[in-house]
Amino acid sequence: MINTFYKEMTGKESVIRQFFDYSRKRAAEMGPDSVFNFSIGNPSVPAPDSVTKAMEQLLQNEDPVTLHGYSPTLGLPSTKKAIAESLNRRFGMSYTPELIFPTSGAAGALSHALRAVTKPGDTVLTFAPYFPEYIPYVTGTGASLSVVPADPSSFQINFEKLEEMLTPEVAAVLINSPNNPSGIVYTTATIQRLAKLLTERQEAYGHEIFLITDEPYREIVFEGTDSPFVSRFYDNSICCYSFSKSLSLPGERIGYLAVNPRAKDAELIVPMCGQISRFTGHNCPSSLIMRAIEGELDNTSDLSIYEKNANLLYEALTAIGYSVVRPGGTFYMFPRTPNDDANLFCWTGAKELGLITVPGDSFACPGHFRISYCVPTEQIEKAIPLFRELYRRFA
Amino acid sequence: MINTFYKEMTGKESVIRQFFDYSRKRAAEMGPDSVFNFSIGNPSVPAPDSVTKAMEQLLQNEDPVTLHGYSPTLGLPSTKKAIAESLNRRFGMSYTPELIFPTSGAAGALSHALRAVTKPGDTVLTFAPYFPEYIPYVTGTGASLSVVPADPSSFQINFEKLEEMLTPEVAAVLINSPNNPSGIVYTTATIQRLAKLLTERQEAYGHEIFLITDEPYREIVFEGTDSPFVSRFYDNSICCYSFSKSLSLPGERIGYLAVNPRAKDAELIVPMCGQISRFTGHNCPSSLIMRAIEGELDNTSDLSIYEKNANLLYEALTAIGYSVVRPGGTFYMFPRTPNDDANLFCWTGAKELGLITVPGDSFACPGHFRISYCVPTEQIEKAIPLFRELYRRFA
Repeated sequence: MINTFYKEMTGKESVIRQFFDYSRKRAAEMGPDSVFNFSIGNPSVPAPDSVTKAMEQLLQNEDPVTLHGYSPTLGLPSTKKAIAESLNRRFGMSYTPELIFPTSGAAGALSHALRAVTKPGDTVLTFAPYFPEYIPYVTGTGASLSVVPADPSSFQINFEKLEEMLTPEVAAVLINSPNNPSGIVYTTATIQRLAKLLTERQEAYGHEIFLITDEPYREIVFEGTDSPFVSRFYDNSICCYSFSKSLSLPGERIGYLAVNPRAKDAELIVPMCGQISRFTGHNCPSSLIMRAIEGELDNTSDLSIYEKNANLLYEALTAIGYSVVRPGGTFYMFPRTPNDDANLFCWTGAKELGLITVPGDSFACPGHFRISYCVPTEQIEKAIPLFRELYRRFA
Repeated sequence: MINTFYKEMTGKESVIRQFFDYSRKRAAEMGPDSVFNFSIGNPSVPAPDSVTKAMEQLLQNEDPVTLHGYSPTLGLPSTKKAIAESLNRRFGMSYTPELIFPTSGAAGALSHALRAVTKPGDTVLTFAPYFPEYIPYVTGTGASLSVVPADPSSFQINFEKLEEMLTPEVAAVLINSPNNPSGIVYTTATIQRLAKLLTERQEAYGHEIFLITDEPYREIVFEGTDSPFVSRFYDNSICCYSFSKSLSLPGERIGYLAVNPRAKDAELIVPMCGQISRFTGHNCPSSLIMRAIEGELDNTSDLSIYEKNANLLYEALTAIGYSVVRPGGTFYMFPRTPNDDANLFCWTGAKELGLITVPGDSFACPGHFRISYCVPTEQIEKAIPLFRELYRRFA
C-alpha cells in the first residue's frame, strides 16, 4: 500500500508555492503586465560565459567515457581539490580534498551533514526567520527541529532565547547567513558570541554540538557589510554551500559540504556521507557539471543587480513608511507588514494589485513579508507605487 | 556527536570495491599489463555523438537563465512528456507525463519508489543473486529486505521458495531483469507466473503488493532473448530506469521512475516522490542533462560489443569446463566456481594471475563469481588462458 505519511503531505502545498502559482494563473488570465512577482528566489542573472565555455570545451575535448563515467563515491578528486584550495585561499582555512564532499546543491549538503552529526531523537536548533525546507531536512534524519524566536529589531541571533533552548538534547545548530528571508548577515560579533556559547555548552554537556552553516548566499553580500566566514570561528562546524545563486546554476544541482579541519572526527565525516548517500539514493552531482565548475570557484555571475535592487527597494519602502531591517546581502528583504495579519496583507496585494510577496508566517516570523528582488530593476520601479498603495490600505 | 551507525559502516568496504582497489594497486605496482580487471560495471563504450551534440546545442542556443534554472519539483514537463511517449511507443503502454518522475539514476528511482509503497516495518522481497546496494536502499526506508534463494540452474525465479516467503508482511517485491550479476533476463513465462502469484496474494491478504522493477540493463539484451516489458503484466508496478548503461552516462546521474497507469493510486505516487525528495535532500537531475536526453530516448550507445564479448567468453569458459548459465543480456556473467569457496577462488585469481572478478557471496549467491565484461574484446582474448589456468588449479 502507498505510504500514508507522504500521501497526506501531497495535499498540502507550501504557501510560497501557492503565491507563485497564483502569479502564474493571474499572468495567464490578465496578461504578464498585471503581475509583479516577488515570490521566488530564482536567480535572474545568467551564469558567467566562462561556465558555459567550460562545459562546451569539456564536451568537445574530453573522452566521453571518462567525462560521463561514474565519479568515485566521495566525489571527483579534482573537484574536491579545487574547492579546498579556493576556500583556503579566500578564507585562510586549511581544508584538504578529503574534507570536501560534492553534493546536489545545498539541499544535499544539509541532508548529509545533518545525518552525519545527529541520531534519531536528537534536537536541532535553528533561528527564525528560517527557510521552511529545514523541517523535512531535519525530520528526515529522525531528529526534530526547534526554532529559536527571532530578534526582529536586527534579525541577528536572539541570544536570550538561545541560551534557554540550548539544552543537552541539542546535537546541532543550523544557521543561514546571509539569511533567507531577512537578507541579514550575521556579524563577526554575533558569530563570536555564538561560538563562545556553543563551546561552553559542549564543555558543560560533555558532547560536541555541531554548527551547520547553510551558505548559498555567501557571495551575495553588499558593500560595507561585515561577513565573516563562520567556520573560522568554531571548530565543530560543517559548511554547506551551493552554486545555485553565485553561478546562477540552480537547476544543475551542484554544491558541497566542507568539514572543518579542526572538527572532532573531521576525517570520518566525508566517508560517512558516502555511506549516508547509499541510504537516501543520493549520488554525486553530474560529472560534467562538477568538472565545469572547477575553474570557476573564485568567479560569480554579475551579482551587482541584487545590490542595486536592494538599495532602490529599501529607500522606497522606508520612505513609504514600511519598517525594514536593511539587508546586508542575498536578494531578499523582510519588512514588517503595517498590520498584524501578513496573510491578509499578502493576499490583498496579490489579488487586488498583482503584487506577489510571501507572508512571514511561512518562515516562522509572522507580521513580516518576504520580497524576492531577483528581478529586473524595472519591475521594482513599476511596483513601488503598488507597495505605497498597499501600505495606505493597511496602515 | 557523529552518528555511530554511519561511522561504523565507514570501516566496512564492499567486496567489489576491495577487488577493484586491488586491481588499481596491482596495476600501479606491476604495470597495467599485469591486470585483467573484470570487477566493475562501468560502460566501456562512449555516449552517442548525438547526446554530446544535444548538450552542445543547448549550451549554444538556450538562454542560460532558463537552461540552468530550477526545474519544477516533479521534473521538467518536456522531459516527462518525452519519456512517457517513448515508453508508450516502444512498449504499448499508456503513461502520461504525470506518471514519470526523473531521478538521479536508478538509485534515486529505487529509493523513491521504495519509500512511496512501503512503511517502516514492512518487508521487501528480492531474489538472489542481487545487487548488494539493495540493502541500504531498502533499509533506508525503514523496511527490511528478505532474499528469496536463487535457482542456480537457470537464475529464473525460485517459485517454490517465493510462495513460502510471500507473507502478508510483504509490501513490495523488487526484481532486476536483465540481472546484475547473472546476466539473465526473466522470460515472459516467469513474469506471467510472478504476476499471477502476486495478484492472488494481494487478494488473499487484502492489500496491494507493489512490484518494483529495476531496469538499467533493459536495452542490453542479446539476440533471440525473450525480454518482456514487465509493467505490461502487472498493474501495481513501478519501473525504475537509468540511462547509465544505455546511453553510457553513469556519471551524469540520470534516470526516472514510471508509475503503471493502472496501479492503485497511480496519480498520487509521483507527487509523493516530490515529498520524499524533501526528506532525503534529493532533487531533480541536472536540468541540462534532462533536456539533453529528451531527443535520445529511443537511441543507445553502440552496445554490440557486450554481446560479442558475452558470446566469446561463454564459449571459452564452457569449453574450459566452467558451468555457466548463458546470459541473455547486460555485461555480466555468473559462472559456478570449480570449488565451493568463491572468495578463495577470486583472490587466487587476483593475486596470482591478475584476473580480477568478484565472488558471488557479495550477491547472496556463494559458489559463483561475477565477470563484468564491459571491457575491450582484446582483454577477454588475453584473459582466456588465465581463466583456464585458474580452473585447472581448482577443478
